[in-house]
Amino acid sequence: MLDDKQPQLTPLEEIGEFGLIEHLTKSFEIQNESTQKAVGDDAAVLNFGERETVVSTDMLVEGVHFNLAYVPLKHLGYKSVVVNLSDIYAMNATPTQILVSIAVSSRFPIEALEELYAGIQIACKNYKVDLIGGDTTSSTSGLVISVTAIGSAKKEDITYRDGAHENDLLVVSGDLGAAYLGLQVLERENEVFKVNPNVQPDLAEYEYLVGRQLKPEAGRNVFELLKELEVKPTSMIDVSDGLSSEILHLSKESGYGFKVYEEKIPLDPMVIKTAEEFGINPITCALNGGEDYELLFTISQEDYDKIKGNPSLTVIGHTTEQNAENYLMLRGSDSAVPLSAQGWKSI
Amino acid sequence: MLDDKQPQLTPLEEIGEFGLIEHLTKSFEIQNESTQKAVGDDAAVLNFGERETVVSTDMLVEGVHFNLAYVPLKHLGYKSVVVNLSDIYAMNATPTQILVSIAVSSRFPIEALEELYAGIQIACKNYKVDLIGGDTTSSTSGLVISVTAIGSAKKEDITYRDGAHENDLLVVSGDLGAAYLGLQVLERENEVFKVNPNVQPDLAEYEYLVGRQLKPEAGRNVFELLKELEVKPTSMIDVSDGLSSEILHLSKESGYGFKVYEEKIPLDPMVIKTAEEFGINPITCALNGGEDYELLFTISQEDYDKIKGNPSLTVIGHTTEQNAENYLMLRGSDSAVPLSAQGWKSI
Repeated sequence: MLDDKQPQLTPLEEIGEFGLIEHLTKSFEIQNESTQKAVGDDAAVLNFGERETVVSTDMLVEGVHFNLAYVPLKHLGYKSVVVNLSDIYAMNATPTQILVSIAVSSRFPIEALEELYAGIQIACKNYKVDLIGGDTTSSTSGLVISVTAIGSAKKEDITYRDGAHENDLLVVSGDLGAAYLGLQVLERENEVFKVNPNVQPDLAEYEYLVGRQLKPEAGRNVFELLKELEVKPTSMIDVSDGLSSEILHLSKESGYGFKVYEEKIPLDPMVIKTAEEFGINPITCALNGGEDYELLFTISQEDYDKIKGNPSLTVIGHTTEQNAENYLMLRGSDSAVPLSAQGWKSI
Repeated sequence: MLDDKQPQLTPLEEIGEFGLIEHLTKSFEIQNESTQKAVGDDAAVLNFGERETVVSTDMLVEGVHFNLAYVPLKHLGYKSVVVNLSDIYAMNATPTQILVSIAVSSRFPIEALEELYAGIQIACKNYKVDLIGGDTTSSTSGLVISVTAIGSAKKEDITYRDGAHENDLLVVSGDLGAAYLGLQVLERENEVFKVNPNVQPDLAEYEYLVGRQLKPEAGRNVFELLKELEVKPTSMIDVSDGLSSEILHLSKESGYGFKVYEEKIPLDPMVIKTAEEFGINPITCALNGGEDYELLFTISQEDYDKIKGNPSLTVIGHTTEQNAENYLMLRGSDSAVPLSAQGWKSI
C-alpha cells in the first residue's frame, strides 16, 4: 500500500514518542466551536452549553478487523473514524470530536502512520469533526486503533435503541450486504496474489462492493434527511454486525418482536450477482455480513407518508407484540424463520 | 494471578460477543447525575449543563506497559482506570465517566476478564466515576486496554500546561521514583522465579514500592487539597513519564525555562535504600522513572504561604525566563546539568 519506490522511510525511534502525536496531528484544524482545547494537554476540553454530549468508542485490531495485505492504511484511517461516527449518527446526534489511540510495532515506519493519519484527517474534514486527543504507544505485534467519538444533540432529539412501540415500521437506509461481499472479493484476490504475485488484480467490476468495504460512509445523509423530513425515529441503531443482529438488539431493548420481509431487504444488483458467483444467498450477506454502516430504525406508522417513495429509505418490516419472537418472512410464501445473530468470532 | 484451584474456566466463545460487555458490566452502578445513558446503546449520553467537559485517553499494551507474569489482572484493571483519571485531575477537573475497550485473545478465559473488570469496578467506586461504554474485541496476540476518561470543571478552574509565568514556583505532590523501583523489584523476582519456580518471592520489604507500581492512585487528594487551600495552579501536568519529561512539557508549552533543585526532590527512604541496592541514583528514578502519577504544577509566589509546610506538597524549583534552558541544580554545589527527556522506547 505504500509505494515501493519511496526511497527513505523513517524509523519511529527517530522522532521520539512525544513528538509523534504532534507530528501526526499538526495539520489538523479545529472545526467546532465546542472544542475549547484539542490535542496537547492532559485532556481535551469541550463545551456543549445546553446540549447533550454523546460518546462512543470502537477498537480495530490488525488480523481481526483488517488485513494490511489488501487494506491501504489511508482507507483504514478513514474507516476507523467513520465506524465511530456511525454510532453517533445512530443516536440521532451530530459528531463533533474524536480521540484516536494507536498501538504500533516498530515495523511500521513513520510514513505508514502518516498514511493512516492522512485518512483520519480526510474523515475529520468530510464529517467536520475535530481530532482532540489520543495516545500513541508501542505494540509487540500488530496495529491496534482505538477511536472514541463525541457528539452533540438536543435532549429531545436523541434516539435510543429501546424506543420502538407496537406496530412501528422498521426502516433501513441504502442497501445491505455489499461490504461483506467486498471483503470476500478482496480475500479471494489476496489468495490469488499469494500463489502468483505477478497477477494484477482486476477489481474494476467489483468497485462498488470493494468501496463499501474499504471506504464506508457514516449515516450523515440519512441523519440530515430525517431532520428535513421531520421524522424522529422511535429507535435507531447502525448496521455494523449485520441486519439480523441489529434487529435483535432493537427487539431486546424495546421488548417488542419484529417481522422482517425477505423480499423487502434492499440489495444492490452487484450484491445479487456477486453472491451468486460466490455461491452464497445474498440475503445471508445482508442478515449476517455486517459493516454496511447503514442506519436501521423504527418509525411510527403516522410518519409513513413522510418517507414513502424516498429512494434512500426502505420499509422492511414492523414490530409485532411485546415478548414476541423475531422472524424473517420468506419470499413468496407464508413461511417464517426465526432471526438469529452470529456469535463471538474466535480466532 | 488466578487461583490455580479454580476448577472450570469459561472460554470466551461460550458467552458470545454481545453478551460479554453486558456480562462484565452488569454490576456497575451509575454514580453521576451527568450520566444520562451508560453502556448499552450506540453511544453514551452525558449532560454537563454549564460546566466544561474534559476528555482524555490512554492505551495499555501487554508486553509494553505490563507483564502478566507479575501484574495481577485486578490490579491492571484498577491501574488502567487510574492512569486516565490522573490526566483529568491534571486539568484540575473532576473525573465523572470512563469508556473501556479491550482487545483480547482467546487464551484468556472469561474469569480472567472478570478479574480485570473487578479492578476497573473498584477504581470506579473509589473515584466515583461511571463506566459508560466500551468495545470488546478479539486480538491475535496479547491484551490491549484503551481507556477514555471524561471529566467536568468550571471554565475558570481548568488548568492547562501552558499557564506558567516568570518566577512561578514549581511544586510536586507526594514523592517520586517509587513506581519505577517497584517495577525493578518485580522484574528481578520474575527472573528468579523463571530460574527456580519453587522460590516464593518475599516482597514484604518492598511493599511500598511494589504498591506504587501495581496500584497507583490518581491525584484526587491533591486536587481536593488545592481547592481547600484556595490555590489555583498556573499550569499543571501529571507525572506519568518521569519528572524531567513533565518539566520539559511545562517549559515548552509556557515558553519559560525551569530550574529544579536536586536536594528538594522528594524521595521516600525506601526509594533511596532500594536504588542503592540496584546501583542506581535515586534522583535518576525520580527524573526518568515515571508512573508515579503525582501532580506537578506551578503556582504564583503569592500562593507560597498557603502551601508552605504542607507534608503533601514540595516546592522543587521555579520558572526562570522566556526561552531559557531547563536545569537540574546539583546538590551542594553551584553546578547545573540540562534536563533531558527519555525518548521513544522501541521494542
